[in-house]
Parts: sequence; C-alpha cells; structure tokens
Amino acid sequence: MGLTVVPILLIVLEILFIILFGIFVQYEKLEVHNNIQVKSSQEVYRTIVRDQNSSVANNLTHIEVVNVTNVQYFIEDTREHVQDYYAVFQDIHVMVLIGFAFLMTFLKRYGYSSITFNLLLAAVVIQWAILTNGWILNLQDGVIRISMKTLIKAEFATAAILVSFGAVLGKLNPLQLVAMALIEVVLFQCNELIVLKLFQASDVGASMLVHVFGAYFGLMVALFTARPGDVQSQSYKELSVYHSDMFTMIGTIFLWAFWPSFNCALAEGEGHHRAVVNTYLALTASAVVAVAVSAAVQKNRRFTMIHIQNATLAGGVALGSMADMVVYPFAVLLAGALAGCISVLGYQFFTPCCDQKLKIHDTRGVHNLHGLPGIISAIGAIICAAFATQEHYGESFSKIFPAVGKDSRTPGVQAEFQLAALAVTLAISLFGGVITGFFLRLPFWKQPKGAEIMDDWDYWVLPSDGYPIIPNSVNAPPIYKLPEQTTMIENNA
Amino acid sequence: MGLTVVPILLIVLEILFIILFGIFVQYEKLEVHNNIQVKSSQEVYRTIVRDQNSSVANNLTHIEVVNVTNVQYFIEDTREHVQDYYAVFQDIHVMVLIGFAFLMTFLKRYGYSSITFNLLLAAVVIQWAILTNGWILNLQDGVIRISMKTLIKAEFATAAILVSFGAVLGKLNPLQLVAMALIEVVLFQCNELIVLKLFQASDVGASMLVHVFGAYFGLMVALFTARPGDVQSQSYKELSVYHSDMFTMIGTIFLWAFWPSFNCALAEGEGHHRAVVNTYLALTASAVVAVAVSAAVQKNRRFTMIHIQNATLAGGVALGSMADMVVYPFAVLLAGALAGCISVLGYQFFTPCCDQKLKIHDTRGVHNLHGLPGIISAIGAIICAAFATQEHYGESFSKIFPAVGKDSRTPGVQAEFQLAALAVTLAISLFGGVITGFFLRLPFWKQPKGAEIMDDWDYWVLPSDGYPIIPNSVNAPPIYKLPEQTTMIENNA
Amino acid sequence: MGLTVVPILLIVLEILFIILFGIFVQYEKLEVHNNIQVKSSQEVYRTIVRDQNSSVANNLTHIEVVNVTNVQYFIEDTREHVQDYYAVFQDIHVMVLIGFAFLMTFLKRYGYSSITFNLLLAAVVIQWAILTNGWILNLQDGVIRISMKTLIKAEFATAAILVSFGAVLGKLNPLQLVAMALIEVVLFQCNELIVLKLFQASDVGASMLVHVFGAYFGLMVALFTARPGDVQSQSYKELSVYHSDMFTMIGTIFLWAFWPSFNCALAEGEGHHRAVVNTYLALTASAVVAVAVSAAVQKNRRFTMIHIQNATLAGGVALGSMADMVVYPFAVLLAGALAGCISVLGYQFFTPCCDQKLKIHDTRGVHNLHGLPGIISAIGAIICAAFATQEHYGESFSKIFPAVGKDSRTPGVQAEFQLAALAVTLAISLFGGVITGFFLRLPFWKQPKGAEIMDDWDYWVLPSDGYPIIPNSVNAPPIYKLPEQTTMIENNA
Repeated sequence: MGLTVVPILLIVLEILFIILFGIFVQYEKLEVHNNIQVKSSQEVYRTIVRDQNSSVANNLTHIEVVNVTNVQYFIEDTREHVQDYYAVFQDIHVMVLIGFAFLMTFLKRYGYSSITFNLLLAAVVIQWAILTNGWILNLQDGVIRISMKTLIKAEFATAAILVSFGAVLGKLNPLQLVAMALIEVVLFQCNELIVLKLFQASDVGASMLVHVFGAYFGLMVALFTARPGDVQSQSYKELSVYHSDMFTMIGTIFLWAFWPSFNCALAEGEGHHRAVVNTYLALTASAVVAVAVSAAVQKNRRFTMIHIQNATLAGGVALGSMADMVVYPFAVLLAGALAGCISVLGYQFFTPCCDQKLKIHDTRGVHNLHGLPGIISAIGAIICAAFATQEHYGESFSKIFPAVGKDSRTPGVQAEFQLAALAVTLAISLFGGVITGFFLRLPFWKQPKGAEIMDDWDYWVLPSDGYPIIPNSVNAPPIYKLPEQTTMIENNA
Repeated sequence: MGLTVVPILLIVLEILFIILFGIFVQYEKLEVHNNIQVKSSQEVYRTIVRDQNSSVANNLTHIEVVNVTNVQYFIEDTREHVQDYYAVFQDIHVMVLIGFAFLMTFLKRYGYSSITFNLLLAAVVIQWAILTNGWILNLQDGVIRISMKTLIKAEFATAAILVSFGAVLGKLNPLQLVAMALIEVVLFQCNELIVLKLFQASDVGASMLVHVFGAYFGLMVALFTARPGDVQSQSYKELSVYHSDMFTMIGTIFLWAFWPSFNCALAEGEGHHRAVVNTYLALTASAVVAVAVSAAVQKNRRFTMIHIQNATLAGGVALGSMADMVVYPFAVLLAGALAGCISVLGYQFFTPCCDQKLKIHDTRGVHNLHGLPGIISAIGAIICAAFATQEHYGESFSKIFPAVGKDSRTPGVQAEFQLAALAVTLAISLFGGVITGFFLRLPFWKQPKGAEIMDDWDYWVLPSDGYPIIPNSVNAPPIYKLPEQTTMIENNA
Repeated sequence: MGLTVVPILLIVLEILFIILFGIFVQYEKLEVHNNIQVKSSQEVYRTIVRDQNSSVANNLTHIEVVNVTNVQYFIEDTREHVQDYYAVFQDIHVMVLIGFAFLMTFLKRYGYSSITFNLLLAAVVIQWAILTNGWILNLQDGVIRISMKTLIKAEFATAAILVSFGAVLGKLNPLQLVAMALIEVVLFQCNELIVLKLFQASDVGASMLVHVFGAYFGLMVALFTARPGDVQSQSYKELSVYHSDMFTMIGTIFLWAFWPSFNCALAEGEGHHRAVVNTYLALTASAVVAVAVSAAVQKNRRFTMIHIQNATLAGGVALGSMADMVVYPFAVLLAGALAGCISVLGYQFFTPCCDQKLKIHDTRGVHNLHGLPGIISAIGAIICAAFATQEHYGESFSKIFPAVGKDSRTPGVQAEFQLAALAVTLAISLFGGVITGFFLRLPFWKQPKGAEIMDDWDYWVLPSDGYPIIPNSVNAPPIYKLPEQTTMIENNA
C-alpha cells in the first residue's frame, strides 16, 4: 500500500494508549454498599433504586428499607452491576463488530478490507473513546473510572466512526482511516458534552450523537478527499456479486435483531421498556415499507439489494432520539414507515444526484440510512419534548427530561434545546468533517488512487480464486477477467 | 414479478396496522408496586414471587416481607420487568431472523428471496400477531397491552408462519406469502385459544402450537397450490452450491445454539431450569444420531448436507411440548436421539415418497424437522402428563399443569386434554391449510410458474456474477451455463 | 470414507450415554431457600450472598437481613439461578459452535467437514464432559447434579477439544476425532482436578485448562499421526478461497465479541467486573498490534488473512488465567499487545519451522493462538499471584485465591502452585497427546491418506459447483481444475 509506516505508527499508537491508560484509567469501584441511615420509626421508606448522583452512579442496586428500627438498609451483589447492562452491551458489541462490518462487505473486491478495517477502527476507537470520554466528560479527581456504562459509551463512539467509515469506504487507506477516527472521536465527545451536559438534551439511542454526527462528518470527509475520476473509472467495483450480498445480509439482520438493545441500553425505568418495544415495532414498519418502496421505484417492480440491506434498518435510526419518549405505539410505526420510505427514496434518487451534482460519493449510502432517518428522529424528539407532560410519563418524566422543572425550564424550552442540540451536532460534524477532509488530502497520506480504489489487492496477500496474487505492476493492478462471465444458452424451457 | 400491485398493497397493509395500533395498542404499565398489607405480627410471610392473576401478570418482582410492624413490603425496579425476559427474547429473535432465514438459503438461486421474504414475513407477522393475539386472547377493556411476553408470543407466531414458508419456499410470490401469513396467524391464535385457554394443555416450547401447526398448514398449502410439472422441470434449482450450503449452516448453528431459549422462554420456576437443561441435552443427542444415521442411509456412508442442516435440530422440536415436564435427563437424550433418527429417515425416505405419491412438494422438508418431531413431542407430553405427580414436580407442578387439581381434573384427564390439543392442532392446521391453499391458487395471485420457480431472477435486480441481468425474454429466464462446470483431469496421485 | 462402522459406533456411543445419564445424572435442586435464623437484636446482619459450601453452591441468592425481630431472612426466585449465568452461557455456546466452527472454514475444500465435525464433537463432548466432570470432580452421593455451572464447565471442555481439533484439522477421520475427544476429555478433567482442587490454582478463563491443554495435546496428536508426504502433496488445499476466508471472519468476530463472556463466566464479585473489562481491553490491544505486525512481517506491507483471523484474538487467550487478577487496566493492554505480536510472529516464523523441522503440521496454527498466548497468560497469573495483597483485591481476594491465608499459604506459595499448575498442564497434555497419537495411528482407524486429506470429497454427497460428485475411483479423488483460474488481461488503466 505504499505505506510502510502503518505498522510502526499503529504500534506507537498502542504504546501511547498503554501509557495513557496507566496514568488515567482505573476500574469503577463496585463495593457492596452498606448505607445505613436512621429514619423515623413507624414508617416504611422506599428509596429510589438507582442513586444517581453518587460516584457509583451507574450501579443498579436492590435497596431494602426496614424502618422499624430506624434503619435504612442497602444490599446488593456486585455481580449485578455487570448483569444489568451485560446482555444489551453484548448485543451492541455484535452490532458494531458483525453488523457494521458485514454491512460493508457488498463491495465485490473489498470484503477482507471492510471487515478488517472495521475491526481495526473498533479496536482503536474503543481505547481512544474511553480516554477522551473520561477527559472531556467524566474525569473524577484526575481519574477515569471504567464501568459497564463506559464500555457502552465507547461502543456508541465506535458506531459513529463506523458510520463515517461507510461514506469513505474503499477510498481511504488504513492510515487515513485511523487518523480520521482519532480526530472524529474527540469532536464526538465535545458534541456529547454540549448536547447532553450543557443543553441537557435527550438522545437515548444516540440518533443525533451517533447517526447524524457520523453521517455528515463522513460525507464531508468524502467530499474533501474526493478523486471523482478515479471513482468513476473503478465504478464496476462498486457492484456486488451474489455471495457478497449474502454476506451483507448477515450484517443487516444482526443489526435489525439487536437494534432494540442499542436504543434501550441507557434508558431507565419505564423508558427502558418503551425503548425496547418502540424500536422493535419501528423496525417492523420500516422493513415492510422499505420492501414495498424498493419494488415501487424500480421498473418491472424488482427489488434492489442495497435498499433491503439498508432501508429496512431505518426504523431503528428513526427511533434513536425518541425511543423512550414516544408513548403511543402507533406513532413509532408511523415514524418507522416514514423512515423506511425516505431511506429507499434517498438511495434511488438522492445518492446519484449527490454523487453527480454535489460531488459527494457516499459508498455505502450512509446519508440515506443514518443521516436522513437521524434527522427525522431528532425532529420527532423535538415534537415529543414540546408536548411532554408529567401525566404522560409518570416516574420516567424526570429521567427522560431531567432539566425540565429546574431553572424554570418548560417542555417548550426543552424542545428548543433539542433543536439546538441538532443544530450543534450538524455544525460540529459538518465543520469537523471539512477540516478533517482537508487534512486527510495532504499528499503525505498517499491516498489510494486509480485502480487501488475499492480493491483488496493493494492491502492483502490474496488467494488465487479469481484474484491475482502477483500483479503485473506494483502501482497498477491488472483488470482481470473474472470467472463470472456466463455462457448464455438458448432457453429451451 | 408481474405483480405491480405488491408495493401498494404492502403500504396499504402498513397503514392499516398503524390505524389498528392507534385504536387498540398501549404499553403494559410497569409501575413499581407498593402493595402494603397488614399481617399478624410475630410472623414472617413470604409471598409468591410472581403474582399471576393481576393485570401485570408477567412481572417478576422481588418481594420483601418485613413482618415486625405487620407490613408486607413489595419492592422492585421496573428495569427488571424487561431484563427477566430480555436475553431469551433476543435469542429467539435471532433464531427467527437469522436461523430460519439462513436455513432457507440452500437453494442456489433463491438466496436473496429467502432472506428478504423471511424478513418481510417476520415484519408483517409481528405486527399482525400482536393485534390478533390481543383481540383473541388478551383484550383488557378493549385495549391490547404490550409487554416483553407479548413480544415473545409474537415471535412464536412468526416462527409458525416461517415453518409454513419452508414448505412452499420458492413456489409462491411475496403477495401470496403475505396473504398466507395473514390468514395463518388468525388460525394460529384461535388454536392457541383452544389449546391453552380452553383445554389448559401445556405446550411451553410450542411444539404443537408452532411446529406441528406450521408444518401441516404449510404442507396443505404446498399441496393445493402445487404445479408438479413446473417443479419437476426446475428441479436442478433445488440443488445447492457449495457456499449456499455454508450459509445454511449459519442458520442451523444459531438455531442449535439458541433453541434452549425458545423452549425456556415462557417456563417458570424449576420448570425454567429444566427447560434449559433438557433442550440443551436433547440437541446433543439429536446431533450425534442425525450425523450417524445420515451416513448410514447413504451408500459409501457419505453425509448429506440437508440432513445435517436440519435433523441435528430435531431434538429442540422434540422437547418443545415437554421441555419443562421431563424430570429425568436420560429421557430427553432418548427423545432427542429418536427425533434425530426419525428426521433423517424422513428426509431420505418419506420426502421423496411424499413428493411422488402424495404430490406434496416440501421444499425445505419441514415435515421432517417440524412435523414429525413435533408429534413426538406432543406424545411425550401426553405420557408425562399421565404420570405426573406433585411429588415429582414440587412447586413447579401447579405452574406446568395449572388445571390439575381444579374441577377434579386428574393427571389422566390432563393427558387426555393434551391429546385433544394435538388433535385440534392437526385439525385446524390441515383444514386451514387446505382452505388457504385453495384460496391462493386463484388466478389473480399470478403464482410463479415454469422457470420463475425457485429463482431470484424474477424478483431482483441481480449482480452479474453468473446470474443474467438481462434475460432474453420476460417470462422465460435463460438457462445459462454456470461457471461451475469443472474440467476433470486424470488423477495422477 | 471406508469407515462403514461410523454410524453404528456413534449410535452405540449415544446409547451408552443414555444409560449412564439414567444411572448418574439428575438436576440440581433449585428450591427457594427459607433459612430463618435468630440473631441478636439491635444489629444488622448481612450474610454472604453466595453460600459456597452448600449442595446448592452455585445459586446466587438475594439475602435480606431484618434483625429487629431477630430474624435473618432469605428470599429468592428460582428463575434467577438460571438468569445469573444464562447470558454468558449463551455467548460461550455461540463461541464454541459458531466461533470455533467458522474459524476452521478457511480450508477451501473442507468447509462442510469443519462445521459438521465441530458440531459432532461438541455434541459428543458436552455429554461426556458432564459425565466425566461429575465422576472425577463433583460426585455427590453417587449422583451428578446438573446446574448452569455444569453446562458452562461442559462448554469449557468442548472448547479444549476443539482447540486440539484445529491442530489435526483435515487429517483425521470422524471416528479418530471422536476417539481423540473421548480420551482427551478424561485427561482434561484429571488435569482440572489437580490444578483447581489439589493445587487450588486460579484459572478463571481457563487459559491453562483449555487453551494450553488443548493446543499441546492437539500438537502431539498431530505429530504422532503425521503423514508428512501426504500433507505436502495436498498443500494446495491448505489455501483458502476468497469466500472461505470471509466465512472464517464470521468465526473470528463472534469470538472477539463474546470472549469477555468466556473469561468472566465463572468469576465472582469484583473479579467478575474486572474479567469483563480486562478481556474487552486486551482484545482491542491485540487487534491493533496483530494488524500492525501482520503488515510488518510481509514484504510490500500487505496483510495476511490467517493473522487477522487468529492473532487478533490472542488478547482473549492471554487474559484467560488472569482476567480477574489484573488490577491495572494498562497492564491488560500490554498483555494483549504482547500476545497479538507473538501470535503473528508465531504464524509467520514458528509454524513453517515447526512444520519442517519438528514435523508437526498444525493446520489452523493453534500453537500461535492458543499455545503461546496461553503460556503468557499462565506466567502473568504467576506474577499476579506473587504480588497479590488483600489491599489490592478487597472482598474479591478470598474468591480469587481461596487457599491463601489457609494452611499458611502465602502469595509467594500461591505463585509456586500456579507455576506447578502450568507444569502439570503441559505434562499431562503433552504426554496424553503422545499416547493418544500413537493409539490413533493404529491401522484399523483407516486414517485418511493422500488425496483424502483436507477434502470434503471423501465424506460428503457434494453439490456440482466445482466439486465432483462422482469420482473416477473410490480411493483416489481426481485432481480437478477449479474454475478459479483467471485469465489475465493487460492492464489498460
């Protein structure tokens, strides 16, 4: 790949991570609590199960209150700290590693690279996200404490970067990808700081933080690192082969199945239950509508694989910001249906236009799966917030909108903050993407060009099944005749 | 596909679902309970952990009894309502979406359709099953309340429909499949009403409700929509290619791994533990025996892929009705071994006979994996019920057989009800399948014929790797020479 | 396969298992506890959540202490016995069945056999491991009691056997594999008896018990059943094809995602939390470094698929023995990075040398993924034990090192026992592998030879896509020209 420095730089990076982890990172302390407090007798107290403001904020605890002898009693097993999040954490981990990776294997000659660069980016970003999230959002006495929630947050950051990866898939080399990831993660954390901490906006399934941010950042990087002639000359490589599309469906279906875990992971109380049910339902609606619209936009009413692989998932993105907010099941079906429809239309009409008019080449079409449905979700959350009442939400009201009620913030003001959060997310991602794109087009990155684009050939020792092991020239892989051509025989049926 | 109305009809269907959800569906209320009851002092009360008859029937709760001040105290976290079912729910979701889908990818030219129609059917059936299950079985004051159990019930209904899909795989168009699903789900709920509510039969892992029902319904639809000449002329498409069989094994192994979750999901107390262990063990026995018998029935003692892909799973089906009933681990090994053996024999001897004599063409062989082992399971449950005693089951007795003891129902009578449940399931599925089959063969459905059978060509924009993009005639895809033919060279080893 | 006795022997084996299960195996009793004890008033007691020495040792319980009326009160739901382990159990199950199976599908003509023999071995070993683990380690009054922990232990034994299978992959027939498994499981349990019970060494994620044991046992079997000329003549079959490598990556990524579950499954208290976080972090480091070193060792800085498929996982193995011991997050990154580096170097330099000099042909390279990183892990555990203090570990100290403090065992002595455990593991696995290898090379096993090696042809009814259905001679499959050859066209880019 002309990039003999990749191994050295990756190893230096890992050494740097090890040093920084040594200085900053410790485990969250998960001791059994023994909070004993004297209370007035003749009463029964029930304390809130989740004590939100302590240094062990993310530990679910079973609290028993026995007031007779004025004792409030606390009991728990440390194993439960892990268990309350473990199943959803693992689902999200599979989404990031299997889901995103295989969703990118449709390119017929870029399967090895898609999966491996996905894994490499995940491995780098998880470490870097733990560090930056700690520094920017959660530093306690100079120490970053890792708990299950830290891991879930790291997975969210990884998902954002992998969304951006989809936009530049096949066009940047691993060094550029890692550099992009390192920059993007920092901006991702800054955006989270503004959206969640400053604005106290609600984004439980991270449609703004992950999907909108990742999509528009990636599109800007794609725009400013573009080599239009090269992509055009290699466009035959953008086609899939039959089995590469089958591999892609593995990614699609794991994402479809596990998306409720993504949206519910950080939701609490009744909002947790709603996030599961809502995401589950929205996905069914987006699948039905995406299949329908895919056939509708094609002459002969044929389905197109890229629509099925992506737009069926739009319901999950569309619920991201409002999965715990919507309190009417029919409304999430509507949102999912709308997102599925818009996503297919995006692939069919907007992506070619975007490619030719705006010169933004979006390899995996992340704008249609993550960008547009993410904006739908953010708008939905604004509407939900504007009409939110204590009556609708019960005990989950203060969990979803912790700022409402304080500082005289009304639901209407909360809605304005949600809108501001979307605006800031778009601003940071677009501007950050532009800067990063400019930086990544500097000559020393040795960006792939010509036949190197969307091809494993340049990065891999390839097997001999239709892919040449020994190219006839180092810089120009041969255009070889694949054994795919078929000999037509007259139909005698 | 000659079916230009598909997109419109699917969208109309989704709009209908949205309206019906708006009228009928709400979330299950999951408030924290505060049942405080005065009890006599100087005693310690332990209440039953699961309060079965309240409107929040499916909420596991941690109940604390503090008797000193005559207070019975109830405490719980709403997150646990979800968590108690979440891991098994996700496993079942993966079984339905990955397991069933990839199990059908063995057809060499029907991979796209298998996976996508599987997803489409799941998306339609989940919504329709929530509605119909509510209307027929669980309507409360005109409202259907969704909880985690509702989602698991919807997955069960989906599984039944996907079993039927296996029997007609490649022979019906998407419109026929959706129509079949809509009818079948209603009959499925009626059968559940009779079997579980009226007869109070036990069918924890749904061998009768899902496997027997789905298989015989599907077989009848296959029989009455049959076009024997067409299937015969296209029989070369029923063969797999090497990698399509590999994709199928992804489905097989996820089903094998997660089947304990399917059978234990709705089991309670000790029955839950037994359901996990029993299903796990039965699958090991059916895998060993299926591999053995697959070699035994072939000359040269070679294995046959379709046996391995399906019959290894027979142990899971065979335990469905009795997973929580069997109290001797060796007995489940025996049941699993028997089911594995019968399933392979079914594929080898019964399916060809069924095809030629009875004119029932069962594409995926659902009779051998779901029909026969499901009947074994139902018979096993009859035997278990007949010999059930309080002594064997302890606290789980009343959970498995809630009717025994009431209305002077003895174990013998319970066994008779189990038998009646099997008979009703067979009757409804066979009769329902006949009616549905007749309905689906009406000309306006434009059922695929000739070369359109078992071929993605008619439904998809296909890539150019051995599959023709432009057929030489709209109604007759060419028979093309695949690059699969190999040139034999004399063996010089 | 010339082995017409396989079906009969497998069925006899299954019958034997059924009889032995009938004699020995019962379910763990999971009744709700009602331990009520009178305590002195005016105190609050907290009892240990896990009562370790009772016959229900592995049941997590929620214990409430209400001391006012001198009552210590115990309450729990039996469903939790299962739930506390269910999610990690299922993850491990997927690792064993999907992970190991697909990791072996890289061989271009051995995909069917890799997956099916993996499943067959798992099915046999699970049953045999439950029996032998019970007899050798956990017999209670002549009865083996199955609980969730029993299933996890059975999965661990299965993993060890599947590691060994990787070393002999493609070179032994199913009968030899089953025989190897039956012997190896017994030695595995004996080794566990010595390491865990006698030495009281700590090996929470089983790097010694599973990875070191499985690897060296397998290597010895490979050595003593070797037919070097045959392997050499068939070496072209060791190459992958493009899509077989893609299937392998499914295995890799599921192992990478779920490895934290493997290492944390049997950890307790805070050690459980550390095991999750540590394994997760170590895998990220090993992935980054493995990718880097893979490019570094290849001229042109190209990646090699077998490195990515295996060495990225070395961090999980490297943490196996010390996942709950390490108390500094940076240290696990260091261990993961080291293991990733050594693993790639092993594949690149040691395996060819091992093959040519030592005549050990290690098909999947298990020495590099399981052997070397497993020894790193064991050494890491020795160092951790030597420097362990109560201060570092808090409440988890007595859980990780139950023997320290008793019988005047100091941390230094514990470290010596850890070293002894590694030595014993190596001794038993090497010696056991030698004996087993000698036994398996006896002529009556009819070991595959010549063209039968690494080929599905001899075992399967194959489809017609490049694989001949009818060979020209029973004992010598033809060397056929695959359609893989490509016609090079001059590069006109």
